[in-house]
Amino acid sequence: MSTSSSSLLSESKKVPVGVSARHIHLAQEHVEILFGAGAVLTEFKPLSQPGQFAANETVAIFGPKGSFPKVRILGPARKATQLEVSRTDAFSLGLKPPLRESGSIEGTPGIRIVGPAGEVTVDKGVIVAARHIHFHTSDAERWGIADKQLLKVRVGGERGIVFEQVLARVSDEFALDMHIDTDEGNAAAVNTGDFGEIME
Amino acid sequence: MSTSSSSLLSESKKVPVGVSARHIHLAQEHVEILFGAGAVLTEFKPLSQPGQFAANETVAIFGPKGSFPKVRILGPARKATQLEVSRTDAFSLGLKPPLRESGSIEGTPGIRIVGPAGEVTVDKGVIVAARHIHFHTSDAERWGIADKQLLKVRVGGERGIVFEQVLARVSDEFALDMHIDTDEGNAAAVNTGDFGEIME
Repeated sequence: MSTSSSSLLSESKKVPVGVSARHIHLAQEHVEILFGAGAVLTEFKPLSQPGQFAANETVAIFGPKGSFPKVRILGPARKATQLEVSRTDAFSLGLKPPLRESGSIEGTPGIRIVGPAGEVTVDKGVIVAARHIHFHTSDAERWGIADKQLLKVRVGGERGIVFEQVLARVSDEFALDMHIDTDEGNAAAVNTGDFGEIME
Repeated sequence: MSTSSSSLLSESKKVPVGVSARHIHLAQEHVEILFGAGAVLTEFKPLSQPGQFAANETVAIFGPKGSFPKVRILGPARKATQLEVSRTDAFSLGLKPPLRESGSIEGTPGIRIVGPAGEVTVDKGVIVAARHIHFHTSDAERWGIADKQLLKVRVGGERGIVFEQVLARVSDEFALDMHIDTDEGNAAAVNTGDFGEIME
């Protein structure tokens, strides 16, 4: 770390907060089952991370106890299909997904996914996403933060919270943004566009 | 405060956590509109606070955008009807209730309540409950905590959180218990029966 301790102490480490509602990432083979042969996800609006987007397309998902008729797909297509829900959503669906980093889906519950052209049931892929911060490499270096480091981050006003175990993810491909789910956002009464502050 | 600073430092201040799902308190006049003339709430099971109980009776509630068909009533009847929802619930209902201490309902949204014998629409009473800890006077004295003091409380394991602005409520009528709502419980992945620790 080249950052001096004096700059660490003097600079407030403010991070924009993004509150993620339930959403799904799809493998291309599942895009084509759900939306038809040759279908590709189309961009509704860009997300904070470069190249990522909310798609125009949505799917219905069905758990053992409940369902959500319209779940937003985030694109582009990924290697594996992954549904990210809040713990509140998980109770509604009748599932007990573990807290996981995105992409870590071994041993997680499956889910039935229905699109306009077909449906697919995956045998794994449902997670509650572990809160994390995307750092561009330059932000991480400036603040002396290492990839995979666990941070404490304060957010919120009248419902202030310090989130512990916030996972740092560092890459040249990332833009600075803290991702929490709707339970976490509501518990702190924060919305996308608010700011958090890294405490340690 | 008679508590010495040495005992404050040496004793861990552990508090049981109760996660409150959406629920409603009813004025007796509304009990009778909803359940019939002369009706009284009947006990389904006792709550942590002496004399308080979850009632056998439930009601349906209807907001501008959504509804909940079965909301538990907590008894006994109170002076004013009050619906306590999570921020997640509030979005489903289409309401923006403020964060309030129980009993403080001036300027809050109203709600339509339907029971088996009738219905009532109140013009105020919907709140998101401010997190709080009930202390018996003896607990508060032992730990040097004053009524209305705002505390920081750590809860949770792999999803650990420090809740700030936790309101202390002290009375001879209370039993030690920390009350948070389902958003807060889910954000920290804690359940009723887990413990928090007062940090300061």
